[in-house]
Amino acid sequence: MNPVEYKPIGIIHSPFKQPTGIPRQAVGAAEITAKIEIFEEFIDGLMDLNGFSHIIVIFHLHLVKKGSLKASPPWDNREHGVFATRSPYRPNPIGVSVVRLENIDCNILNISGVDMADGTPVLDIKPYIPALNPTKAVRIGWLKDKVEGMNKSKSGDR
Amino acid sequence: MNPVEYKPIGIIHSPFKQPTGIPRQAVGAAEITAKIEIFEEFIDGLMDLNGFSHIIVIFHLHLVKKGSLKASPPWDNREHGVFATRSPYRPNPIGVSVVRLENIDCNILNISGVDMADGTPVLDIKPYIPALNPTKAVRIGWLKDKVEGMNKSKSGDR
Repeated sequence: MNPVEYKPIGIIHSPFKQPTGIPRQAVGAAEITAKIEIFEEFIDGLMDLNGFSHIIVIFHLHLVKKGSLKASPPWDNREHGVFATRSPYRPNPIGVSVVRLENIDCNILNISGVDMADGTPVLDIKPYIPALNPTKAVRIGWLKDKVEGMNKSKSGDR
Repeated sequence: MNPVEYKPIGIIHSPFKQPTGIPRQAVGAAEITAKIEIFEEFIDGLMDLNGFSHIIVIFHLHLVKKGSLKASPPWDNREHGVFATRSPYRPNPIGVSVVRLENIDCNILNISGVDMADGTPVLDIKPYIPALNPTKAVRIGWLKDKVEGMNKSKSGDR
């Protein structure tokens, strides 16, 4: 099957200049603020985004060198298939995070709750709409009783 | 900024052979079933995924010919910036849907609640973890009072 190619629509400016110490999930980083710079040619796509309190950011995990099919998170001692984890080391290093949109200043989105490294290429922004998510009868397999550890963990922990 | 390239990890086999008539959101298509065929080289990445009731599927909207910066959904009469909509016609046609995982048979994921066309390339699978999503103080801007129309809408409606 042919590879697909995407052109970044923006870039993240965040306090995390190194691949270690980054919160592993956006929800565990409420106090961390950052900026998404949307490239000029895409500014018209931002119309009406300011009415949303949260956005889904789809980004390229540019610091990840090599994907893997098994992952063992620092707060667990077993290996799991990478598609059953949120590990950044995956065949296609695509990140999906819900962050808080504080405000928009022209082509700059000020956001908080950030788990992305400085310089991360942004591929897409979508409005976060809770009604699109299932709420009933959700099972989370091996992560049951482990979600708290996941939220507090930072990259490089071990 | 350099383009990024991803190699599909699988392909969707769904009842939707044409780009019209596809539910616009997975949550509005609970009864629709489909299969995700994971390519053989990635099977090891599926370990422990069967414990999850829902998965996030990240896919390439391969039928979308041309992106746009403004979108006007069929159930609304105003244009909005594409990043404030879930329109498939976006600069990078990346889809993100939460679907129900019914079961896994070797490299085949049987799923329901499907809004993807037959032949859609799959780029990544992540476990759906409700605790990672914000629930408090969520505002949905222009979509307020319109979510029901969005969920019931199909592609090609106008």
